[in-house]
Amino acid sequence: MAEIIPILRNKDDFDKQIRILVELCKEDLESINTLILEKLDSSVPLIYEIASYLILSGGKRLRPLLTSACFHLNTNTTKKSSKHLGLAAAVEFIHAATLLHDDVVDKSKKRRGKLTANEVWDNKTSVLVGDFLFSRAFQLMAKFGNLEVLKILSDTSVIISEGEVLELSNDKNLEINENMYFEVINSKTASLFSAACQVGGISAEVSKNQLNALKSFGTNFGMAFQLIDDAIDYSSSTNKMGKNTGDDFKEGKITLPIILAYGRSNLSEKKFWKRVIADLKQEENDFDKAFSILSKYNCIQDTITRAEHFSNVAIDSLDVFDQNKYKETLINLAIGSIQRVR
Amino acid sequence: MAEIIPILRNKDDFDKQIRILVELCKEDLESINTLILEKLDSSVPLIYEIASYLILSGGKRLRPLLTSACFHLNTNTTKKSSKHLGLAAAVEFIHAATLLHDDVVDKSKKRRGKLTANEVWDNKTSVLVGDFLFSRAFQLMAKFGNLEVLKILSDTSVIISEGEVLELSNDKNLEINENMYFEVINSKTASLFSAACQVGGISAEVSKNQLNALKSFGTNFGMAFQLIDDAIDYSSSTNKMGKNTGDDFKEGKITLPIILAYGRSNLSEKKFWKRVIADLKQEENDFDKAFSILSKYNCIQDTITRAEHFSNVAIDSLDVFDQNKYKETLINLAIGSIQRVR
Repeated sequence: MAEIIPILRNKDDFDKQIRILVELCKEDLESINTLILEKLDSSVPLIYEIASYLILSGGKRLRPLLTSACFHLNTNTTKKSSKHLGLAAAVEFIHAATLLHDDVVDKSKKRRGKLTANEVWDNKTSVLVGDFLFSRAFQLMAKFGNLEVLKILSDTSVIISEGEVLELSNDKNLEINENMYFEVINSKTASLFSAACQVGGISAEVSKNQLNALKSFGTNFGMAFQLIDDAIDYSSSTNKMGKNTGDDFKEGKITLPIILAYGRSNLSEKKFWKRVIADLKQEENDFDKAFSILSKYNCIQDTITRAEHFSNVAIDSLDVFDQNKYKETLINLAIGSIQRVR
Repeated sequence: MAEIIPILRNKDDFDKQIRILVELCKEDLESINTLILEKLDSSVPLIYEIASYLILSGGKRLRPLLTSACFHLNTNTTKKSSKHLGLAAAVEFIHAATLLHDDVVDKSKKRRGKLTANEVWDNKTSVLVGDFLFSRAFQLMAKFGNLEVLKILSDTSVIISEGEVLELSNDKNLEINENMYFEVINSKTASLFSAACQVGGISAEVSKNQLNALKSFGTNFGMAFQLIDDAIDYSSSTNKMGKNTGDDFKEGKITLPIILAYGRSNLSEKKFWKRVIADLKQEENDFDKAFSILSKYNCIQDTITRAEHFSNVAIDSLDVFDQNKYKETLINLAIGSIQRVR
């Protein structure tokens, strides 16, 4: 077990931590982006057009960055393998495929401040290009992975799609409890974060304990990340992460702040939530009213507190690794993810 | 190279050949069906409900049967492996996933004489359950496959989705030529037939030459199968394969009979095709008129002749295998596939 060295817990914001991670993994990221560009190519021009519209639209490449950082985390490794680059690209392709299908399912009109593919083209093309990206991901895995990696990523894909259907089954159900919600975001978000970390570690041939640590880091960081995303939607008027405050509300999305609020609300407030969220009948000033109920019951702060819990578990997971700049950056990223909302 | 023994070319119909194949692969098929049932299970009940609605609705299991037959084709093999069973199930899951997404894209209301999943539930659930089945397929491959199998099946998935988008790009384009159409059906249908045959062979550790033979058999049999499907739609009033004559016509689908007819039509007939197919403005008796133009230019017969070409290439591919009951059945299946339309 590595000696635990206290490190500076940087209070800087998440974007800065991402920039530091990008700088640290610069060489890898360039190779990953080259590979992504190469694999976006298709003999069918429409596929390249739509797939690149999404994938080259300035996402943060957070998941491939996790793969890269987790690959380099084990400083004892002498491996000069570059397989983790192909797997990082595969993870980004799985992510992109789920975004395309998500936007069709949610009938979303905007993503990262741009029109969604289903708005620019149509639903059917988005479905098929999503399938293409998903297939490409498995092609990359078959090329760069081994059976352990394939098991992790195919298990993760099953979990993601189960999570999506579970979410759809719970649509408009305000009585979904916190635990069921955690299950949904674990499937939809945290599982791919976790897989991204694990495939980086496997490529570096980390020990079983270290692999479990990466699995835990990814899962818990992913949970924190998603919960802060939920909180941001009710916390500020500025545009962060290309997401507008109130978007979840406008779509009647049931996220943790709403689940907490509904449980704590009195009868008349419950009626309000049913109208604006379950029936999606919203009037002017309803967002302000929602915000005031959320504040009354401390729901946004409690969502952040839950996120802090997961972030702390994520950070502690990394104890088995020796101190190094990759570890420090991952820790600061987990801390920074909470700062996003402040 | 095996000695070529002339065999009885059975003129019986396709369904009978399928029954013979089912009987021959009975033990395998039971195991495959058990595995399919097991892998349909999900912690999310809606997934099992929808996936089993499609997968247990009485499809012929043609692709898994091909995997099984191609596994047993090489009588020299001493392998007692059962990996081909898992791969056969994976192939069926990929097939089912594409059917679910196809029905969403084509807005189909019926499949195999039953309402489609997108009609019974909705488009978004069909998209997500399709993703689940696709992920399950890769899980099965990771468990039962090797990297060669994974490459073949992931390449095939890429080709299928490219074919789907290519078809969508050519939607309502009556001037698509025969060769482009062959490319589409090769991607959409023949590639998975081919993959099904190849993974059977790989599991039996066939030689490189034999593997190429199986690849060719699958591809060419798949082409013949699809072209006869196209011809059936314009050839009879009886309900074959759960498909009603005139279905393609009603949907304005551009298949080989239409492509041939449009190319051979005079100006007034071209105008007719544009109205009924491209603009989908159909009146009573239009199907009869379409049928008479198709007959005038021999388009259905020529489609069957094209199918015969592919079927013959498929049959000849199997020359490298010794004569045995599996080979005989595969050959009779290829012959029988042409008989479907007669």
